[in-house]
Amino acid sequence: MRLDRLLSDVHAATRQQVGYPVNQDFDYSALVPFLDYSINNVGDPFHPSNFWGNTHEIEREVIGIFAGLMRLELEEAWGYVTSGGTEGNMYGLYLARELFPNAMFYFSEETHYSVLKNVRVLNARHIMIRRQDNGEIDYDDLEAMIRVNRDVPAVIMANIGTTMRGAVDDIRRIGGILRDQAVTNHYIHADAALSGMILPFVDSPQPYGFDAGIDSVSVSGHKLIGSPLPCGVVLTKRPYVERVGRAIEYVGVEDTTLSGSRNALAPLMIWYAFARYGHEGFRGIVARMLDTAEYAVGQFNERGIPAWRHRNSVTVVFPRPSEDVFHKWQMAPEGDIAHIITMPHVTREMIDDLVDDCAA
Amino acid sequence: MRLDRLLSDVHAATRQQVGYPVNQDFDYSALVPFLDYSINNVGDPFHPSNFWGNTHEIEREVIGIFAGLMRLELEEAWGYVTSGGTEGNMYGLYLARELFPNAMFYFSEETHYSVLKNVRVLNARHIMIRRQDNGEIDYDDLEAMIRVNRDVPAVIMANIGTTMRGAVDDIRRIGGILRDQAVTNHYIHADAALSGMILPFVDSPQPYGFDAGIDSVSVSGHKLIGSPLPCGVVLTKRPYVERVGRAIEYVGVEDTTLSGSRNALAPLMIWYAFARYGHEGFRGIVARMLDTAEYAVGQFNERGIPAWRHRNSVTVVFPRPSEDVFHKWQMAPEGDIAHIITMPHVTREMIDDLVDDCAA
Repeated sequence: MRLDRLLSDVHAATRQQVGYPVNQDFDYSALVPFLDYSINNVGDPFHPSNFWGNTHEIEREVIGIFAGLMRLELEEAWGYVTSGGTEGNMYGLYLARELFPNAMFYFSEETHYSVLKNVRVLNARHIMIRRQDNGEIDYDDLEAMIRVNRDVPAVIMANIGTTMRGAVDDIRRIGGILRDQAVTNHYIHADAALSGMILPFVDSPQPYGFDAGIDSVSVSGHKLIGSPLPCGVVLTKRPYVERVGRAIEYVGVEDTTLSGSRNALAPLMIWYAFARYGHEGFRGIVARMLDTAEYAVGQFNERGIPAWRHRNSVTVVFPRPSEDVFHKWQMAPEGDIAHIITMPHVTREMIDDLVDDCAA
Repeated sequence: MRLDRLLSDVHAATRQQVGYPVNQDFDYSALVPFLDYSINNVGDPFHPSNFWGNTHEIEREVIGIFAGLMRLELEEAWGYVTSGGTEGNMYGLYLARELFPNAMFYFSEETHYSVLKNVRVLNARHIMIRRQDNGEIDYDDLEAMIRVNRDVPAVIMANIGTTMRGAVDDIRRIGGILRDQAVTNHYIHADAALSGMILPFVDSPQPYGFDAGIDSVSVSGHKLIGSPLPCGVVLTKRPYVERVGRAIEYVGVEDTTLSGSRNALAPLMIWYAFARYGHEGFRGIVARMLDTAEYAVGQFNERGIPAWRHRNSVTVVFPRPSEDVFHKWQMAPEGDIAHIITMPHVTREMIDDLVDDCAA
């Protein structure tokens, strides 16, 4: 009875969800039989495990898929399926700190709040960089801060789609700043939680991948792909990880992942989504999401509401509505703005209703 | 087809599993309907969330249950459901470092290997303490190391049941050492991954709870309770967390958990197991596991194999068998020993077969 009530609460809560980058449109019923077993992807997916009830083979395929999406040579790629975006970002920043222990860490004030916790956990020196009005990092401020810290390596946490405004920090421009300042010891981690599943599927993406100069990236699994439990993929270059892994080899384990015991269902869900939709399927999903976002901007603007979005972004930003409106539609406003994110389950009818509410 | 093959591999792998502290005997089919929704326990379970598709209420009840088990006043208790033991240990050690930034961290060489990674991530100074032959921390060595570091606070990672030998570090004796050395700034985190679900259900437990002096504890959910995905509970005192949480309040979020997005199914599974079995049910399960462990020691000894176990432990230690035996039975040997762990799915017939194999 308690479960029935909770399920109907959850159903109600997810029907009207437009404010979060969470796809509610999926079907993993084929995976239900795996719930009968305690399975565990403990440790490094690229090393044999004594715990046989695992999906490491599937996980390696997922890493292979993401290596392709993120433009990293398969042979050079290492990664694993994380418990979510925070672990992925933490992993990238941890690697960076191990490679450059005395580095200064830079990230914009538009960055997800969890990154501040990450650098605090890591005990890493950091400087928060101003953002532009559109949510992109302020490159002048970044350059100025790197200039006064040229005596230490630079670690940059770049946003490939910020949470609030969907802004993409320009990786190539950041690389140019590092070159100009001759800071050769540098590391760029990309938080591509949502847009890491958008940019690979559009015709003219902003620079986002390893070809553009990133050293690691975190992409969420429960956002665009959709999944009943949070998960994500962290991807980096194998030589970096070997450096971290080696140091603890004497305990006889390649303890290269941040979590030890790891969810074996999560890789299966991501793998299943790709098996079901394929790259062409995701290309279609992304195109429809972008169409819906463009439709939303148009509908808002027609009603005199100054909504906008970035190119290749499904995050539609508009002035903060009244409390009952953003409560009804489960939005997370920030200051004087709010946003909707046109995930696959968000229909034009929902947009129409929402715009009506905002205009009222 | 691929899924069918994987499922049958998983089935085969879990049938004969005696070497891991993982209960394979559970049934969560009642929770399958929740797999249709992207639910998320993002953030602090004790704070209201804008993301309504959560099981925070259930999670708070789980924390309440564990407060009782761990002998902590409900009003003083704070905690959350983690992605597994590593996150729980990491959280306790993170809190300790925030409370005592210049502390020395102490833990025995018998401690799970992930703790070394944890202190490395935290950039914490640490000393590894010798173990006794039975797996307990060497109290003399601990005292000696604390004595030469009396100028800094002491953080002790105590094992309430070590992974390899099921040894319980004596919390009260550790407390006595700290008192003797007048190190008043101290913190004890307990890794009670498995035994945290055993000791509360036996008549005469070793000291293990907050009443014995611990400051935080991590217990696994996928071990004794059993669950298809790794999870755990971390429990600590609310005032400690308020100190960590406050510092990041300016971003408008109580970002008190290590993971941001968090699995909402995991609390539901733990809650469901307690709803199904109740405390009396777990008392019975634990009694049967201990019986099976005692039976195993007896059978080994009868065949001349010097197996042994700690009081209140389901971990049966014996000389490392031949490679084909420990491979067949999925054991993780260490040096010249191996162990089996008599989880609920481990039957006397399995023990008989295993002992036959070892004696052969």
